[in-house]
Amino acid sequence: MALLTEQTCRPCNTSSAKQLLTATDIAELLVQLKAQFNDWTFIEDNGIEKLSCEFVTKRYSNSISFTNQVAALAESVNHHPLIMVEYGMVTVQWWSHNIKGLDQNDFIMAAKTSALFLES
Amino acid sequence: MALLTEQTCRPCNTSSAKQLLTATDIAELLVQLKAQFNDWTFIEDNGIEKLSCEFVTKRYSNSISFTNQVAALAESVNHHPLIMVEYGMVTVQWWSHNIKGLDQNDFIMAAKTSALFLES
Repeated sequence: MALLTEQTCRPCNTSSAKQLLTATDIAELLVQLKAQFNDWTFIEDNGIEKLSCEFVTKRYSNSISFTNQVAALAESVNHHPLIMVEYGMVTVQWWSHNIKGLDQNDFIMAAKTSALFLES
Repeated sequence: MALLTEQTCRPCNTSSAKQLLTATDIAELLVQLKAQFNDWTFIEDNGIEKLSCEFVTKRYSNSISFTNQVAALAESVNHHPLIMVEYGMVTVQWWSHNIKGLDQNDFIMAAKTSALFLES
């Protein structure tokens, strides 16, 4: 099976709602994600399942630089995370707004976000 | 009295802890801030008093552009907010980490953030 970082984010559209991941799918994708990048956590925020990760940047300029990299990645596939920028940390949260929960795209993008951080 | 947008953020240092704002100071500064920019709200987050404002951007590229402007403003005075970047909205929160609460600087920076948004 291809690593998540090697997979492609599919276009986001409402038809994804017909292909909601089951709890088993999510558990399996989470195992795959954490096998590559262990820092991601599964969270539930106001009833919406999300993937969340804190990236320690140490400096504000690094936080902003990484934020711009994540934003460019997001724009390239038209799928957008919540990014929280602080002095020494950037928190990124992925979920799919159209289905109000997690899609396979979110696991792919989470992995790609971590790969981007390691390269930066 | 000079408008908040016309005042200068003082250097942040731990001696500010000796000059903590009183509840009356905060109430007066909040009135000044809201007289100029009504969308700012006073919040308490895990016991820390903060100023928070949501800026509607409509597009992700606008969110990122505004985030970079706020970051440049923050770096220019070495005082840094929490910025939450979403598809159509940027939420900015100001408080002073060194005193775990609000300083006059935060009201000045909140006003300057709104002025920046109006210019952009």
